Amino acid sequence: MLAGMTVLDSTHDPKLRAWVRSANAPDSEFPIQNLPLGVFSRDGEAPRGGVAIGDQVLDLRAALKAGLISGEAAEAAAEPRLNRLMAMGRPASRDLRAQLSRLLAEGSDAASQGDSILVPMSAARMQLPVAIANFSDFMASRDHSSRLGARRDPNSPLPQAFDSLPVAYHSRASSVHVSGEPVVRPNGQWKRKDGVHFGPTEALDYELELAVWLAGENALGVPVPMSRAPERLFGYGLLNDWSARDVQRWEMPPLGPFLAKSLSTTISPWVVTAEAMIPFEVPAARTEGVAPPLPYLDSEWNRARGGLAIAMEVWLLTSRMCAEGSGPARLTATDFMHMAWTPAQMVTHHATNGCNLLPGDLLGSGTCSGPTDEGRACMAEIILSGPIHLPNGETRRFLEDGDEVIFRGRAHAEGAVSIGFGECRAQILPAPAWPAD
Amino acid sequence: MLAGMTVLDSTHDPKLRAWVRSANAPDSEFPIQNLPLGVFSRDGEAPRGGVAIGDQVLDLRAALKAGLISGEAAEAAAEPRLNRLMAMGRPASRDLRAQLSRLLAEGSDAASQGDSILVPMSAARMQLPVAIANFSDFMASRDHSSRLGARRDPNSPLPQAFDSLPVAYHSRASSVHVSGEPVVRPNGQWKRKDGVHFGPTEALDYELELAVWLAGENALGVPVPMSRAPERLFGYGLLNDWSARDVQRWEMPPLGPFLAKSLSTTISPWVVTAEAMIPFEVPAARTEGVAPPLPYLDSEWNRARGGLAIAMEVWLLTSRMCAEGSGPARLTATDFMHMAWTPAQMVTHHATNGCNLLPGDLLGSGTCSGPTDEGRACMAEIILSGPIHLPNGETRRFLEDGDEVIFRGRAHAEGAVSIGFGECRAQILPAPAWPAD
Repeated sequence: MLAGMTVLDSTHDPKLRAWVRSANAPDSEFPIQNLPLGVFSRDGEAPRGGVAIGDQVLDLRAALKAGLISGEAAEAAAEPRLNRLMAMGRPASRDLRAQLSRLLAEGSDAASQGDSILVPMSAARMQLPVAIANFSDFMASRDHSSRLGARRDPNSPLPQAFDSLPVAYHSRASSVHVSGEPVVRPNGQWKRKDGVHFGPTEALDYELELAVWLAGENALGVPVPMSRAPERLFGYGLLNDWSARDVQRWEMPPLGPFLAKSLSTTISPWVVTAEAMIPFEVPAARTEGVAPPLPYLDSEWNRARGGLAIAMEVWLLTSRMCAEGSGPARLTATDFMHMAWTPAQMVTHHATNGCNLLPGDLLGSGTCSGPTDEGRACMAEIILSGPIHLPNGETRRFLEDGDEVIFRGRAHAEGAVSIGFGECRAQILPAPAWPAD
Repeated sequence: MLAGMTVLDSTHDPKLRAWVRSANAPDSEFPIQNLPLGVFSRDGEAPRGGVAIGDQVLDLRAALKAGLISGEAAEAAAEPRLNRLMAMGRPASRDLRAQLSRLLAEGSDAASQGDSILVPMSAARMQLPVAIANFSDFMASRDHSSRLGARRDPNSPLPQAFDSLPVAYHSRASSVHVSGEPVVRPNGQWKRKDGVHFGPTEALDYELELAVWLAGENALGVPVPMSRAPERLFGYGLLNDWSARDVQRWEMPPLGPFLAKSLSTTISPWVVTAEAMIPFEVPAARTEGVAPPLPYLDSEWNRARGGLAIAMEVWLLTSRMCAEGSGPARLTATDFMHMAWTPAQMVTHHATNGCNLLPGDLLGSGTCSGPTDEGRACMAEIILSGPIHLPNGETRRFLEDGDEVIFRGRAHAEGAVSIGFGECRAQILPAPAWPAD
């Protein structure tokens, strides 16, 4: 089954074109080779599953009613949450992809029904696509970990276990929400020179991460070896792991970050399936001088195809930029291929202790920093070399109220049609006054 | 509303007796003053809500059908999960308690229908009572934190923020299961003298904690001040936060415990409601020389009634004790009243950043160690002074396969009828062979 899951098929053919014309533009994030799944609503109607194609959303409920798609996977994908589809595993996801590709390909009879099964993306209100069962956040970038760790110990900046296992922590599922919803600046406690302080965070940061959505389920007590890990990867998105750095530094020892993270986590609405990502699989990154992983975290497949080539960017749009009519400024440009640990290794490590991973579980990759200066994927890293100077003369150390942070991602490979992740964006709102007690 | 929630009413009357005779025995854990809620099944029938009374379970579905209780709270409590009741908040829980107390009190007409609404506890298979939305685990015992922290730094054993806020981490919801289900020894990675090692943990420990179940919901971005925190406390149970100490030490810096904890968490099946605990509310513990909490973590109610008087014990039953026909040996005897932070403070702190707390969220109090030697509430603390010598000549440093760990708890107050929590128990099974890759 594994081999079948990770080889190209006709849905990946770079010559394939959609009858939705906007999907065929060379810069489209959603060509017919992508077909990401999401949940949307329109005009107050009930949420339902959809597929991004060019500047349109294919309404899966309408397509089902019209008899253009069928079967249990299609029915599950049309629901207001993708959990049941995720529970069905990758074979179901692959079958659905084949149906969708035929439906949307040039020459399909469905083209004549375009108006009844397509919704303009501008009219679709995207929802949280998944009822998130659990959210675990990794720290898989050597560049991120070593840049920030150097403040603690320049001679040994990495966490002690960094090269032996993908370091991670349990994070908060309830506060994950979808792109477009604002983020309220949190109140919190931290230590200042004048003592312990409580108030709105003064160090609100973004962290650019990849979201990894899980398929299938292992029972409590039953591990997932590397040979089975790829089956558990349902798909990917962009994730902003908002962080209050002042709160984090104070609360963190020894149990790790807590309220510095659970203030909010923003995810992109489209789930780019593992099937769509097959052309962009690359060898797992290796670092000279670092021993190969222990056998339980190693596999031939992972060495050859465990990594993913995804160009990732962060843009900042300040209130003043909006008022001036200027576009956002780019703060980060990096690539997921630099990560020291792969999604498959994260899955296997997470379940070594028998922890039951559920359909709809969310993994964050950790901040996706790369080796170059522009690859610093959070403000805490960027300001190690001083304040951030924006093109319009503004400066930043951390985020201010009214700032909007926008993530973008594009998978890329020679000979393949590049596919996009859509945006993951949110604006910062002022902290609430502390409620009268 | 708050005042009404925290004053005694006729359901707490120590003279009240039940028509279920076993409930009136002086050592009964489940007298009519308790009325804890749980979910049970019998003979393969569908799970449903029940109330512990003496050695019986009141079948809430049967009581509803017989017209002995009514209303939305009673219907929600009869469901296979208590989440909907928890969403309704404490007023619903109080109304339900009043109905149950009348139904079970001596003189009630319901006594004549005993056979049709009671199930012997020995025939009831207890279930996980709640679909756990999120699980956060605190570290609120000064004695636990300082004993273990002294290994790191004898002069400054407490976490830096310990006296300023209730330290906590996000833990894993999916691997929480109910008392009676075995715990599989986890595989994991840690560092030994001969290098990084992967295999079954050699340092499996228990942690005696109080489970705190939450009621109601605050929207993301909306904090919960101390004045509203008591409304969010639905009830309590016992919680075993199983810990693999070797794995924990290796993986922990800097993001905190991960696989050392998500291997399994065992909770007791009965939810002792906050209403039942009113007679056992005590002043929040104060430590000489420690500054009072910042105003946002302080309230008059909390100072007077935020703590809880609960005697808690840990017993160990080894395979050899079973074979010898001897009873379990007591390893820990402590009291929740020693905790440095109260459940109300945990709620308010958790939501200072606007984190949305949901009905069915679970908080762990952290290991409930007390100041005396017998108050050490995990093996890592006990063996600081050498191996554990059991009465039958066996010794332990950590748990062995076949060992069964049993938690018990009893709330106590002068002039009140003591109420019990039932057992939280589980046996350790051998680690699985690592699956062939």
